[in-house]
Amino acid sequence: MRQVAILGVGQTPVREHWEIAIRDLAVAAGRAAMEDAGVERVDAIYVGNMTGGSLNQQRQLGALVADFLGQWGVEAVRMEAACGSAGSTMRQGIMAVASGVCDTVLAIGVEKMTDTGPEETTTALVGAADAEFEAIHGVTFVGLNALVMRRYMHEYGYSHDDFAPFAVNAHANAAHNPQAMFRQPINEKVYRAGRVVADPITLYDASPIGDGAAAVLLVPAERAPEAVRVAGSAVAVDTVAIHDRANPIWLEAAELSAKRAYEQAGVTPEEIDLFELHDAFSIMATLSLEAAGFAERGGGVRLAQQGDILPTGRIPISTLGGLKARGHPVGATGLYQIVEATLQLRGQAGGAQIDGARTAMTQNIGGSGATIATHILQRP
Amino acid sequence: MRQVAILGVGQTPVREHWEIAIRDLAVAAGRAAMEDAGVERVDAIYVGNMTGGSLNQQRQLGALVADFLGQWGVEAVRMEAACGSAGSTMRQGIMAVASGVCDTVLAIGVEKMTDTGPEETTTALVGAADAEFEAIHGVTFVGLNALVMRRYMHEYGYSHDDFAPFAVNAHANAAHNPQAMFRQPINEKVYRAGRVVADPITLYDASPIGDGAAAVLLVPAERAPEAVRVAGSAVAVDTVAIHDRANPIWLEAAELSAKRAYEQAGVTPEEIDLFELHDAFSIMATLSLEAAGFAERGGGVRLAQQGDILPTGRIPISTLGGLKARGHPVGATGLYQIVEATLQLRGQAGGAQIDGARTAMTQNIGGSGATIATHILQRP
Repeated sequence: MRQVAILGVGQTPVREHWEIAIRDLAVAAGRAAMEDAGVERVDAIYVGNMTGGSLNQQRQLGALVADFLGQWGVEAVRMEAACGSAGSTMRQGIMAVASGVCDTVLAIGVEKMTDTGPEETTTALVGAADAEFEAIHGVTFVGLNALVMRRYMHEYGYSHDDFAPFAVNAHANAAHNPQAMFRQPINEKVYRAGRVVADPITLYDASPIGDGAAAVLLVPAERAPEAVRVAGSAVAVDTVAIHDRANPIWLEAAELSAKRAYEQAGVTPEEIDLFELHDAFSIMATLSLEAAGFAERGGGVRLAQQGDILPTGRIPISTLGGLKARGHPVGATGLYQIVEATLQLRGQAGGAQIDGARTAMTQNIGGSGATIATHILQRP
Repeated sequence: MRQVAILGVGQTPVREHWEIAIRDLAVAAGRAAMEDAGVERVDAIYVGNMTGGSLNQQRQLGALVADFLGQWGVEAVRMEAACGSAGSTMRQGIMAVASGVCDTVLAIGVEKMTDTGPEETTTALVGAADAEFEAIHGVTFVGLNALVMRRYMHEYGYSHDDFAPFAVNAHANAAHNPQAMFRQPINEKVYRAGRVVADPITLYDASPIGDGAAAVLLVPAERAPEAVRVAGSAVAVDTVAIHDRANPIWLEAAELSAKRAYEQAGVTPEEIDLFELHDAFSIMATLSLEAAGFAERGGGVRLAQQGDILPTGRIPISTLGGLKARGHPVGATGLYQIVEATLQLRGQAGGAQIDGARTAMTQNIGGSGATIATHILQRP
């Protein structure tokens, strides 16, 4: 297998892009990645997307996006793993280059969620859960995460306010990211005053939906010795229904995919300089930190309280705002993470730059921990 | 890259499976393929599906199906390219094994379309077309194919009745396939009496929707010297909107993907013993035969009229009923084709067996020719 490098990155701002069609969002990010790489023709285009068939009445986004990028005749397909769609797309792109089948692969994540009403969006999102054993009871996707958060608080004795550092850090970092949806910093007082979405999850525990696209152009590392390298790439799955897991507050698949990625990269958690994790909800940030080996069980919140997740901390997270403040266009998020990690490793993260970043990790989660894609990137 | 072999195949009958959940259809086919291969644990599961998010309110089928197959912790994702979803899934599975990333990959195609009303199904299916430049005008997916058929008839001087041999052959062959949806033979008189669905497409030009799943278990060929081999595998895309093509009655991407597959396999059309093509509509069977090099432009219908597509003909097609009579559970179809071609090469096609079949080709089409997956399989 060949080693893979990220030669180009591109992204659109995460916004309510009512005036831009889903194909145009994908094309904007894809085109930006191609221009960044100086590549005009690719071998394959993989598009990550979760809800396009329902919310945009558009399927077959692989061919559609290839068409509007002027890449007729290439290979293209769409990948879906709920909110983990883009991380899974990155993984397949890496495989295509590693195998030698393709020399240049464009991996794009795109989602357009704000044109429809909250009922359609909520219905589309709960498709990430188990339709016949979870959603059928009327629970929403936020509601499922609320159950997990409540259980975690009960088990480890935390109060809701203990989770404040996650949102405060994410918003502070987003202030330096022009692509972010919410760029205003918040403080603990604001966090505490957040209205309840699904008890105990309040407004500042939940990431916002949004419209956006992010893309990377992948090539064999030997062709791009200066480019950021993919040192580890792994996907692992767990049960979709939370009640089927031995422990509802432990992300088994996150632990597994992180472990595989560490092994491939030959690094330990101590060597990770920043971690773009899946803070769709505060509780998921906590669980991701624990499963990936940065805190002991029940210690994710304490890690945040100690300031270890800040840009100057031991393991900076959500360095450009995370899902919470950059925004969470679900099927694009995993590639926003990769783009942001790449910018950090290139030293192009502006005011959000993590000094001396050399090794970065991303973790993208589909459902409440069902599909987990972990990537480790390194500066050459 | 390693060569890839098909060690196991599995399928469910195509029916209106009102009593079986989508996950259970996928599990039945996947389990059958694993048992056929004598494999109990796989490295990755790829699931092809088009409409599950809309018609079954279920996304993230990769993780869900892995869970219900008892394959926790594996890698899994869903692939979608409209009606070309399963062919694209096969392609990604091959890449995963060829690259050396995986040693055993289960590729499953599944679709469950008959629980909802015709309006929901028709809406979901037209997502295969260009939402903003085709579907927005109110045209259905059948309607788009009807426009192509009308244009073809005008250009080459055929009447509707000239297309009869496609449906007659498909139904005759399905009579030998217990998995097929429609097993009754029809004759030309029945074909001619078919009621209009979207002029000039009548009931017998259009494949039926259905519920079903098909699966293959892929391994490196060196591990299975007796198993059917993947000699060629290619996906190519064209514009999604038909009006954007230079020639609306020529499948550019089918020509391209067939050409790539021929080159990989080192064979010519003359060496193909049977061709499982995408006869979603009679016109698509015609265009596929032409693009893949079995007939000159405008000659696909003549080929059928001469009897060349019959089991005893020069290039047998739809040997187990095709989409027309086996049925077309859209996101599963591409893998039904692979399963059927494999059975033919193993000599396990029962009454539908093509004598001496050694090299088989499949072609799966997403949309009206937008995503085309071509595979060439060979008996070792």
